[in-house]
Amino acid sequence: MEIAATVPVRNAEDLSLAYTPGVARVCTAIAEEPELVHEYTWKSQVVAVVTDGTAVLGLGDIGPEASLPVMEGKAILFKQFGGVDAVPIALATTDVDEIVETVVRLAPSFGGVNLEDISAPRCFEIERKLIERLDIPVFHDDQHGTAVVTLAALRNAARLTGQGLGQLRAVISGAGAAGVAIAKILVEAGIGDVAVTDRKGVVHSGRDDLNSAKQELASYTNKTGLVGSLESALDGADVFIGVSGGTVPEEAVAKMAKGAFIFAMANPNPEIHPGVAHKYAAVVATGRSDFPNQINNVLAFPGIFAGALQVRASRITEGMKIAAAEALAAVVDGELSADHVIPSPFDPRVAPAVTAAVAAAARAEGVARR
Amino acid sequence: MEIAATVPVRNAEDLSLAYTPGVARVCTAIAEEPELVHEYTWKSQVVAVVTDGTAVLGLGDIGPEASLPVMEGKAILFKQFGGVDAVPIALATTDVDEIVETVVRLAPSFGGVNLEDISAPRCFEIERKLIERLDIPVFHDDQHGTAVVTLAALRNAARLTGQGLGQLRAVISGAGAAGVAIAKILVEAGIGDVAVTDRKGVVHSGRDDLNSAKQELASYTNKTGLVGSLESALDGADVFIGVSGGTVPEEAVAKMAKGAFIFAMANPNPEIHPGVAHKYAAVVATGRSDFPNQINNVLAFPGIFAGALQVRASRITEGMKIAAAEALAAVVDGELSADHVIPSPFDPRVAPAVTAAVAAAARAEGVARR
Repeated sequence: MEIAATVPVRNAEDLSLAYTPGVARVCTAIAEEPELVHEYTWKSQVVAVVTDGTAVLGLGDIGPEASLPVMEGKAILFKQFGGVDAVPIALATTDVDEIVETVVRLAPSFGGVNLEDISAPRCFEIERKLIERLDIPVFHDDQHGTAVVTLAALRNAARLTGQGLGQLRAVISGAGAAGVAIAKILVEAGIGDVAVTDRKGVVHSGRDDLNSAKQELASYTNKTGLVGSLESALDGADVFIGVSGGTVPEEAVAKMAKGAFIFAMANPNPEIHPGVAHKYAAVVATGRSDFPNQINNVLAFPGIFAGALQVRASRITEGMKIAAAEALAAVVDGELSADHVIPSPFDPRVAPAVTAAVAAAARAEGVARR
Repeated sequence: MEIAATVPVRNAEDLSLAYTPGVARVCTAIAEEPELVHEYTWKSQVVAVVTDGTAVLGLGDIGPEASLPVMEGKAILFKQFGGVDAVPIALATTDVDEIVETVVRLAPSFGGVNLEDISAPRCFEIERKLIERLDIPVFHDDQHGTAVVTLAALRNAARLTGQGLGQLRAVISGAGAAGVAIAKILVEAGIGDVAVTDRKGVVHSGRDDLNSAKQELASYTNKTGLVGSLESALDGADVFIGVSGGTVPEEAVAKMAKGAFIFAMANPNPEIHPGVAHKYAAVVATGRSDFPNQINNVLAFPGIFAGALQVRASRITEGMKIAAAEALAAVVDGELSADHVIPSPFDPRVAPAVTAAVAAAARAEGVARR
């Protein structure tokens, strides 16, 4: 990637406008009327893609430098799919408060902050503190991007089989960044019940080994009071959502309800092979581009930030995320099939639809500032 | 300005290379062999343009947001003239140690740090601490960019009148970032003597009102032991260098040595009008593009960073700065005249000459890493 000028600097006159003395008038105008920074600089169109390199893809804690290729790839997708400029910022600290302080200090230069590949449960605290401190959107894509696309796919799967979300019982394997955020958005979207499992089985309030993020999770999930293993939780479940990186035995999937939905999103190896999953499920999705129904964050984050920046939203609310999911789901209205519950990342309708829905939701929720 | 992708993302295969799963192989390679970050990411081609907004142009402390247009203009010039990508980073803190800590944490993402528009004497401490802590080039352009171009112009002026630098006595009006750095490079380049004046007159070690930067300045300037006003210091001086923003009366300039050099670089109003200065001086330079001999930092910083990044220099040494000045001066060899002691910013020979000289000097000084 590279920086490109959007104005030419070909002669002394151009130079005197792009730099001194002309630029002084722009600075003075902003100093007198701070809101003009959004019109006169790239602040409102640029997002910091911030990581500490502690949870990079499935590779774990590989450090800031080694995480840079992901941040750069992300920046390219931001531009290509959302028209949003993004700058990789890989930090040489893994301390929660140092990360928060650093991002707060960087904020004058950016219109938004996309947190990326920061390990759980630290990512929850970092995001929460930054949202409290900043008046620009802060969005941890590993959480909410995944959650938005998952909800969109689930909406369309339920539409296909004629079920209401309220009828469905889902089991999420994995209580990390993605699992927690998916549970939250599914509950908010009105799904019947959600149980989340970690390596020790269902997360429930009777366990004494839960960190604070999982304690909170236990407080609003698992209404039916499940305890025990992932396999036992899947017995009769309508939805399996895998964001664990582990595997699920065929026997467990076989016990799910008839016409179940299996979203086996671990990369590169889905929790259960889609070919096997299809024997038991009405709809199968994965994280891979070489199977149908790819749950890919790139369907969400470019449009979510584009919409938030368009109206200068002060934050990204739950309502904006749900609006993004609905808009994403609606793109395939009329083309809906078991192998097409979610659009392709290259469907040109996706980003404009998500952008418009997020901007409208920001206005409706009172967080838009233009 | 905007971010542009240098690779296309047109289909699923492109996407799988630019992002997951392909990008995981790049991350893994860097995790195993950290040096590869310079080959596989944009780190080695991107500079952070860091400010706290405390000394923006002649506008003073206008804060980080209002300083952004300067940082953006700078980024555009970096790209246009040096092929170097640069990212504006305007910080929401003016605390020296917080600025240092923040930049240290940002360093994994960048190949170099250009400090900009940070007030003196804080800028000296910030630069010194960052150079100590980081293994990438840190360069305060208001200091060293100005100093390099001034030295280049002075070399050519002296060449024009047949004087050696060692014969010259210079007076610098202004003991801020630029004045201190110009004094330092002139002394290193072998000029006969340099006296620096602030609002209270010549900076000398007998004064008890000097901050530590000025105390250090007093230790290696003013060998002839001048005391008193700028006007008295100019009596018989060969060179006037104005970086104060103040004015100099014609009577004072009239007392300078015959064939003097007057570099009245205050912007937008030179310390003395070039038309008046010409009555007494052999060579007149300003900071303005509408008079001959414009002392413009853009002649230096793009090539200096391009050269440093090209050889992955760990720092920018005094030798590299002097090499930059010599290369810049040499561009007008054979075209030298009183109105052309320094090339135009649009002279296409400038950046390549500076880049090559800086890279060679980095190798010669042992700070190059490739």
